[in-house]
Amino acid sequence: MKRTVFFISDGTGLTAEALGNSLLAQFEQIEFERVTVPYVDDMDKASELVERINLAASTDTQKPLVFDTIVNNDIRGVISKANGFMVDIFGTFLHPLETELSASSSYTVGRSHAISNESNYERRIHAVNFALDNDDGARIRHYNEADLILVGASRSGKTPTCIYLALQYGIKAANYPITEEDLLDQQLPEALRPHRGKIFGLTIDPERLATIRNERRPNSRYSSVKQCMHEVEEIELMYRRERIPYMNTTTSSVEEISTRIMVTTGLKRNR
Amino acid sequence: MKRTVFFISDGTGLTAEALGNSLLAQFEQIEFERVTVPYVDDMDKASELVERINLAASTDTQKPLVFDTIVNNDIRGVISKANGFMVDIFGTFLHPLETELSASSSYTVGRSHAISNESNYERRIHAVNFALDNDDGARIRHYNEADLILVGASRSGKTPTCIYLALQYGIKAANYPITEEDLLDQQLPEALRPHRGKIFGLTIDPERLATIRNERRPNSRYSSVKQCMHEVEEIELMYRRERIPYMNTTTSSVEEISTRIMVTTGLKRNR
Repeated sequence: MKRTVFFISDGTGLTAEALGNSLLAQFEQIEFERVTVPYVDDMDKASELVERINLAASTDTQKPLVFDTIVNNDIRGVISKANGFMVDIFGTFLHPLETELSASSSYTVGRSHAISNESNYERRIHAVNFALDNDDGARIRHYNEADLILVGASRSGKTPTCIYLALQYGIKAANYPITEEDLLDQQLPEALRPHRGKIFGLTIDPERLATIRNERRPNSRYSSVKQCMHEVEEIELMYRRERIPYMNTTTSSVEEISTRIMVTTGLKRNR
Repeated sequence: MKRTVFFISDGTGLTAEALGNSLLAQFEQIEFERVTVPYVDDMDKASELVERINLAASTDTQKPLVFDTIVNNDIRGVISKANGFMVDIFGTFLHPLETELSASSSYTVGRSHAISNESNYERRIHAVNFALDNDDGARIRHYNEADLILVGASRSGKTPTCIYLALQYGIKAANYPITEEDLLDQQLPEALRPHRGKIFGLTIDPERLATIRNERRPNSRYSSVKQCMHEVEEIELMYRRERIPYMNTTTSSVEEISTRIMVTTGLKRNR
């Protein structure tokens, strides 16, 4: 039987979701029905939500789980009367933090995903534009400006990783696809040589690469396992020969790839 | 004086950061020095981290705050001996959840940002590729496939929003820039007419738009406040005339814009 879960917030709900999902991931055996309710920022919305939670409780014949990052004490007070199992993040941690910091909470809503610092936010958006403008080796003249240059075979995950690095960390990441021609002369591609210190390599299992490529160009030489094996092997050889740090992306999400890159390179976030 | 904050995790650290930052945002008056330490997944790394925390404590002459999403009990046991103020997320909530769910936690590391469901993850990455392939009205033949078509003046925030919607929610969002020619005939642009139900409009304060455009093309007609005022006014007129739902992005982050769009349109996430 499904268990209903509410993620509620007076802001975007992203924090409640992140926290709730990391806890729920520990209970693989249970099937959860997830509902996110953002922007619960007045008493009417709070009362409406209480009714929704109570309805789910009576339909499911068990209490929904409620992950709550509502800042306002009054609104939280209303919600706490619902027939749910409350994981109340601000209620649990805010008061001890006030004591430890000898400071009062400002009880201001929706701070964590708002533009609290304009120049930091602009850096993130600039980094996204940088990633888009410097995608797939189309332009190499901005490599001086890049914090990082991701290299790898076509379809090894470079573009989504660059974009995530930009959005999450404000990192300006360009990417350069290593082509067959690049591999002929057994050297680092010329465009990359002046930027050796910024290069990070991605690799991927050839079978997985073939599957991904087949979605774009079915039954082509480009998408064949044989071709993918050849490219991956040569590229990994190059990484080792040129001592380029690299990772295998086969079973990793963009979030995991990006975090690993941050740790391995020692890059500092720009936000 | 700065207060040091550690976000620690045996996974990516993204959840610890999200939760920690949402709590810290309530203490605007205090300056925090943030350190994220992901992948603390063995006893050696845990001991090393304890030393780092203790060093910060003695340098700062006050306890660092430690936001901890470490799943493994043994590793968390080591960390808990550090001289820090612990906000221990799993330690606080996991046991009550086990009781409520009558189930044991699997104590498995790094679940929440891993690829737990391959097809969901693939949908997110497909959505990112869709956003990139259908950026800036270059191709309109895929609009049938789109979950959403974002429209607005050039540089009003469409592209980063489409990408965020894809990464976070797995939504396939295309975008269409409304040009001056589009505004001449006082109608919805032809390419959009068959997809009226999927359109969402962005608008932005003309002064802000002019600032953003000036970064790309300084001192051009395109970037003048006058031109931006004209375009924004006509576009908002069109939104109202055509009853297109829209929002002003001037002071909102991509996270906020995206969540508002999800709420307003009622779109369901694809992940």
